[in-house]
Amino acid sequence: MVQFVHPARGDITLEGVLAALADPMRLRIVKVLLGQADCLSCTAAAPCPDMAKSTLSNHFRVLREAGLIRTTKKGVENRNTVREADINARFPGLLKAILKHAGE
Amino acid sequence: MVQFVHPARGDITLEGVLAALADPMRLRIVKVLLGQADCLSCTAAAPCPDMAKSTLSNHFRVLREAGLIRTTKKGVENRNTVREADINARFPGLLKAILKHAGE
Repeated sequence: MVQFVHPARGDITLEGVLAALADPMRLRIVKVLLGQADCLSCTAAAPCPDMAKSTLSNHFRVLREAGLIRTTKKGVENRNTVREADINARFPGLLKAILKHAGE
Repeated sequence: MVQFVHPARGDITLEGVLAALADPMRLRIVKVLLGQADCLSCTAAAPCPDMAKSTLSNHFRVLREAGLIRTTKKGVENRNTVREADINARFPGLLKAILKHAGE
């Protein structure tokens, strides 16, 4: 069974968060996820409908390893949500300040 | 004569700024430069005194190409300053929100 790696809140680094968000596709994924009340599958949160599954998986992995999202298995689907509380506790105001300018 | 490449304000991208700042040394360089009223040479703004000159030059190049700093030649020295007005005009609040958490 696939085990997802999620850093503990205290292990989330500023550099890691910035590097993970330094990509237009990943910025869009985080924006889409934040706009949802519920978790989303990778496909539902995809920034483009025709993105290769491997590319999409890679973007989600980068976001997960940076501590930006949490992925859980639900049946055959991976469900994703932004770790908003963790990021905001670690770096107050950062996520909002970055996402405000995403997609300009 | 060396010509430094500086993107125009309108060409500074969010992704480029985030990627350039996704490094602890570059975060420290920008913090040091922002704390100075005047421009600083690369050596004076170095995050560690024993950093190899080529490594230091590379960090300054990355920051310059992302639009974060402006480098000018003064005699044999390169003088650097943060393009605070440009970055703040392009992405209000971003630089402050990121640097607040740098070096924690």
